[in-house]
Amino acid sequence: MYEALKEICWKANLELPKLGLVVYTFGNVSAVDREAGVYAIKPSGVCYEQMRPEDMVVIRLETGEVVEGNLRPSSDTNTHTVLYRAFPKIGGIVHTHSTFATGWAQAARPVPLYGTTHADHLATDIPCTEFMSDDRIQNDYETETGRQIVDCFREKQLNPEEVPMVLVAGHGPFSWGESAEKAVYNAKILEELCRMALITEQLNPGAIRLKKSLIEKHYQRKHGKDAYYGQK
Amino acid sequence: MYEALKEICWKANLELPKLGLVVYTFGNVSAVDREAGVYAIKPSGVCYEQMRPEDMVVIRLETGEVVEGNLRPSSDTNTHTVLYRAFPKIGGIVHTHSTFATGWAQAARPVPLYGTTHADHLATDIPCTEFMSDDRIQNDYETETGRQIVDCFREKQLNPEEVPMVLVAGHGPFSWGESAEKAVYNAKILEELCRMALITEQLNPGAIRLKKSLIEKHYQRKHGKDAYYGQK
Amino acid sequence: MYEALKEICWKANLELPKLGLVVYTFGNVSAVDREAGVYAIKPSGVCYEQMRPEDMVVIRLETGEVVEGNLRPSSDTNTHTVLYRAFPKIGGIVHTHSTFATGWAQAARPVPLYGTTHADHLATDIPCTEFMSDDRIQNDYETETGRQIVDCFREKQLNPEEVPMVLVAGHGPFSWGESAEKAVYNAKILEELCRMALITEQLNPGAIRLKKSLIEKHYQRKHGKDAYYGQK
Amino acid sequence: MYEALKEICWKANLELPKLGLVVYTFGNVSAVDREAGVYAIKPSGVCYEQMRPEDMVVIRLETGEVVEGNLRPSSDTNTHTVLYRAFPKIGGIVHTHSTFATGWAQAARPVPLYGTTHADHLATDIPCTEFMSDDRIQNDYETETGRQIVDCFREKQLNPEEVPMVLVAGHGPFSWGESAEKAVYNAKILEELCRMALITEQLNPGAIRLKKSLIEKHYQRKHGKDAYYGQK
Repeated sequence: MYEALKEICWKANLELPKLGLVVYTFGNVSAVDREAGVYAIKPSGVCYEQMRPEDMVVIRLETGEVVEGNLRPSSDTNTHTVLYRAFPKIGGIVHTHSTFATGWAQAARPVPLYGTTHADHLATDIPCTEFMSDDRIQNDYETETGRQIVDCFREKQLNPEEVPMVLVAGHGPFSWGESAEKAVYNAKILEELCRMALITEQLNPGAIRLKKSLIEKHYQRKHGKDAYYGQK
Repeated sequence: MYEALKEICWKANLELPKLGLVVYTFGNVSAVDREAGVYAIKPSGVCYEQMRPEDMVVIRLETGEVVEGNLRPSSDTNTHTVLYRAFPKIGGIVHTHSTFATGWAQAARPVPLYGTTHADHLATDIPCTEFMSDDRIQNDYETETGRQIVDCFREKQLNPEEVPMVLVAGHGPFSWGESAEKAVYNAKILEELCRMALITEQLNPGAIRLKKSLIEKHYQRKHGKDAYYGQK
Repeated sequence: MYEALKEICWKANLELPKLGLVVYTFGNVSAVDREAGVYAIKPSGVCYEQMRPEDMVVIRLETGEVVEGNLRPSSDTNTHTVLYRAFPKIGGIVHTHSTFATGWAQAARPVPLYGTTHADHLATDIPCTEFMSDDRIQNDYETETGRQIVDCFREKQLNPEEVPMVLVAGHGPFSWGESAEKAVYNAKILEELCRMALITEQLNPGAIRLKKSLIEKHYQRKHGKDAYYGQK
Repeated sequence: MYEALKEICWKANLELPKLGLVVYTFGNVSAVDREAGVYAIKPSGVCYEQMRPEDMVVIRLETGEVVEGNLRPSSDTNTHTVLYRAFPKIGGIVHTHSTFATGWAQAARPVPLYGTTHADHLATDIPCTEFMSDDRIQNDYETETGRQIVDCFREKQLNPEEVPMVLVAGHGPFSWGESAEKAVYNAKILEELCRMALITEQLNPGAIRLKKSLIEKHYQRKHGKDAYYGQK
């Protein structure tokens, strides 16, 4: 069962090394089937080159338990479960340790919106969570990582459909989208935005955020109801 | 009709990912046929790998309207129209979000002429426009982006045939040339000059511009009437 | 004799250029057979592309002398001998001049533990030795390089099975692992951690180390007795 | 005639784009035949991919004039002529605009000897010439570029056989070696040393030069009369 879902998940995982977002097994993609109430995710610690579609592990969204697959799911599985439950319209999730995004996460800084490349994708800074409290770390750590992200979005009043990416302080990036493919796209965009923002600050330590009107213009031309980017 | 023009445009667009100047659909090239009064441009939001020559969209220079093609043209089409009209001798235009050039554009800084690699291509700093005013943003945004560039060249009294590149503040680079192929070449050179200039400043925050006599020597040996670089 | 060991050593050496850790002949891997009391190592100054398994040189661990092979062993052979003797559980050693790790070694700084990518692999800063004294330099230099590393681990009370990597001040990185393959993996991780830590400091000069509880959590989930990362 | 020399020169030129040292036509290699009193050099402004061995241009060392070839030689030919005459034991010369070396040249700084990777190749800082005077620029510019390098070596009392590379202030790097192949090797090493030295300074603005005893040890083990690196 779930062959199609596993195939989608597998293909999306294979994109990560091709896009230069992971070395070895440093990352994972999942893809959800909301109707069936399950999602497929990469097995833990398995190389991208050797993975087969049938190695993907299927998790029941309601219980967080494995319903199909012979391998252990990604150690980050519980984070995915929390995010799918809290963000009901997303279809895929990606976690990587991509170089520049991890640098910003380790610096524990949101990524300022410095240009239209950023505004083409989201109309706010890329958020960065708080560092996790010791209590939470002792609890179920991966579940708490998901909660940390959800709390961050609630506090900053961000809409996960409009802001499809986040940095977890001291850890690294998570991204998502309406599909696993789109989540991978957002992981690549995030990495590139992080790199450009570092260069911007190196060139101009007093660089200022793009002004509101320009952010809105770019965001809306791609995402607004009158969007005119791409093909209809 | 316009098969040759579309082929030229298509080939030039395919160079962008090969040269590492774009990810996904972040860039576009157009090629003009001055006699026919039309130019061909990349369709909006279509992947480079999937594009075919027949997907290129042909625009009438006088009206800015589509005269051939089933797809929507690049969302930046009106910028190209303005530039072709204002710069009557250019044959191709490129827009990318290449990493280092976008960094400089986001830092809103012209790129200082620090060395002979730069002087081999242009004899001035790489100009950077002003940030666009709110009035202009509310107007036809892409047309105004073109006007912003034209204004910048007028104010700084720059000749677009001698200075084939510009940074749009908060946005990214545009380049052009006597042909679409040459415009792509200039896009790659621009990215490399931006990278070298950042490294120069990191190594020597007090780095000084190349002196006039050396700039002239290098620029003229490639571009002057007695140029002796390349084959006759 | 030792065909299998030489094959392992050869394969591990070929990984270095593939992973972007070396140019030309700048690096070497060795693989030990503890039962046989020998290890195989790359020949000195030979290109990776031209090397064959039979070119690997076999060294007796007790004497440090060549027991098989027609070529001269790596000039760093004595360093490997010292490390295999002092760290009895390691199975392979790698030395490279990879770019970012060498940058930290030249800056003579341990790499601060800034994030979970680092904590996934080791629970301390990446150590950096002292600069070698003139006395030691005049002595058998490569043997002393090994001793410098061993001294560093003794003084800082580090366990080489838990901390599989080190920077030699003014020189570059060494890494090791339970096998030559794992030692190469650690060489790649080291390079990536060094790059991320530089970016972190560029983004936040006051960046702080990850807190103890988070380090322990990440390190233990991959390496502790209740580790749950990867497949059983 | 000179088929072998042209083949050597052609092959060495093809290495430049493979090693990431040039884009487009930004670089040239020459190879000398001291007995025949000629050297072969890349034609000016021709793409590496399209070049054939027979396109190399042969120059008479004594007169600096073309003795064979249908194309115009590199615009930097006179610089090569000056260097071959002043440095009688070198067999090949390379000029590139490789990114990091050009950054240092534009910053007009010699590259400090920060580590053993550097000392493995030369025992001094990588020298950087003065900026050229206006008089010299007006004269035969490329000849004067060569003289600027020769002057720099004379003033600093450097031996070109021991220091096979230089930065020309505001311009970029030249390297050489006993053969064209070795000159290309030195061009790659130079680029890598420049990159590592930048990273070193970014990590430690107060980084200090490697001490004399360690420089000597590393330089001598590769280049001294008792050198033990590589195969005999």
